[in-house]
Amino acid sequence: MLTKGQISEWFKDLQDSICRAIEQADGKAVFQEDLWTREGGGGGRSRIIQEGKVIEKGGVNFSAVYGETPETILRALKLEKADFFATGVSIVMHPKNPYVPIIHMNVRYFEMTNGIWWFGGGIDLTPHYVEPTDAVFFHETLQAVCDKHQPHYYPKFKAWADDYFYIKHRKETRGIGGIFFDHLADEGSIDKAQRWAFVQEVGNAFAPIYTYYMNKNKNLPYTPKEKEWQFLRRGRYVEFNLVYDKGTKFGLDTDGRTESILMSLPPQANWVYNFQPKPQSKEAETLGWLRKGVDWVGK
Amino acid sequence: MLTKGQISEWFKDLQDSICRAIEQADGKAVFQEDLWTREGGGGGRSRIIQEGKVIEKGGVNFSAVYGETPETILRALKLEKADFFATGVSIVMHPKNPYVPIIHMNVRYFEMTNGIWWFGGGIDLTPHYVEPTDAVFFHETLQAVCDKHQPHYYPKFKAWADDYFYIKHRKETRGIGGIFFDHLADEGSIDKAQRWAFVQEVGNAFAPIYTYYMNKNKNLPYTPKEKEWQFLRRGRYVEFNLVYDKGTKFGLDTDGRTESILMSLPPQANWVYNFQPKPQSKEAETLGWLRKGVDWVGK
Repeated sequence: MLTKGQISEWFKDLQDSICRAIEQADGKAVFQEDLWTREGGGGGRSRIIQEGKVIEKGGVNFSAVYGETPETILRALKLEKADFFATGVSIVMHPKNPYVPIIHMNVRYFEMTNGIWWFGGGIDLTPHYVEPTDAVFFHETLQAVCDKHQPHYYPKFKAWADDYFYIKHRKETRGIGGIFFDHLADEGSIDKAQRWAFVQEVGNAFAPIYTYYMNKNKNLPYTPKEKEWQFLRRGRYVEFNLVYDKGTKFGLDTDGRTESILMSLPPQANWVYNFQPKPQSKEAETLGWLRKGVDWVGK
Repeated sequence: MLTKGQISEWFKDLQDSICRAIEQADGKAVFQEDLWTREGGGGGRSRIIQEGKVIEKGGVNFSAVYGETPETILRALKLEKADFFATGVSIVMHPKNPYVPIIHMNVRYFEMTNGIWWFGGGIDLTPHYVEPTDAVFFHETLQAVCDKHQPHYYPKFKAWADDYFYIKHRKETRGIGGIFFDHLADEGSIDKAQRWAFVQEVGNAFAPIYTYYMNKNKNLPYTPKEKEWQFLRRGRYVEFNLVYDKGTKFGLDTDGRTESILMSLPPQANWVYNFQPKPQSKEAETLGWLRKGVDWVGK
């Protein structure tokens, strides 16, 4: 039987291996570690990287917290009082070079003393400049990860990511999407061990995917104008995270550790009133890709 | 009888006079005007100033919109279907010099076809560096504005601003507060004409207050380190506006004009993980003032 302790230990190891891979690909900066404890129970291990050669600012956070289930969750599920346990790894990377994409991953497990449990998570990519070949690589890799487990995973979780990572007030997706899933529990013939194997596969996919982009694009030349565009795209990232992201909202509402939750914010973001890229420019082309339903893996 | 047309015309004139005063004090930039219409009825006149001598980015927006009252408001007030009319002026100014404070003002009027109406609004100041003399000037001016109308206004609206302009997840107020009020309707001997006279007084107070700080502090020398601190404080401003500000939330939820709503965001904001100013520094001193209940006007 898979225990919560086994799951959180594995997540801790995942954090370790991802940090090692990113430090190696960065070649300069190392993660700064902060341990924290939560008043209601549990705590976490935040790891932040700043001013690297490739990574301008990023975080790889592990946490395992427990205690009384927040009212909001109980109400949503129409449940009586119960204790909960939640553990996961959350990552956001803001690279220096605008040709290296922003990436986000989260894998998490939640259980309550009433026997209810589920897995959730996702990976999504936010290129400052959408390069179709890079986007195809990302989605094909995620499709392969999904297809090893269930044929319905990729189409379902890809569409879910399109809906989730959406900046409604801009009518733009945050980036090129990826996969998103939540409340994965026993269902038909799919049991907990199989759900867990999938979540592990997603976690393990992160480092190879992101270091691929780091290595490939870190030395591409860029202009101040392209850096300026990156700052504007990061502004959109801030808007998504503070207005829509459920993890951020939940963390802030439940008195989580603010500095760990907001590690997702970029080192610098800019806003220019009503900025419109020139028609046919690379910037305009990127905006054209930021919509739901783009089929990157073809038929 | 005071009509909604009279109120919105006055707000339009207020926008004009404030823009003139700011352009004059800036001495370089002029406002760029965008007219927009709202699908459900009405529209607005957005005025944005960017890259001025004193103002790095700011907006003075007027709007007058009408149509079916949004479900959220009807539900909150437990009311049946009704049409609404809402008009107001909203301002945020992000200055270049970190010694000039950020300022925000909003004055607004709302009415429904069922006869319900109210005024709302407020002014609050967010100095990057809190200078007690400047803070006292701000609160004394607002107290004088309030005291001309009702003795209970200043203490009540000052406390309301402390509660409203609060960044819960940082345990910090946004700045040194000011006044905030909402749902001002007929009450005891206070009638609509008196409420309106007060709101006009608040609106008229804006330009003299802010141009005072612009003129006084625009030429103060500052270092790159102080500019960096300004970027971090602007990061907090972004957090408040996107996470807590009800006007922003309401605007985005009801498909308002995004670029007008988000004019409140700064030209540049930075985030540094777990930044802690040196003890006894000017920055640490400022943080010490960012709490509720500071009595700036004394007894």
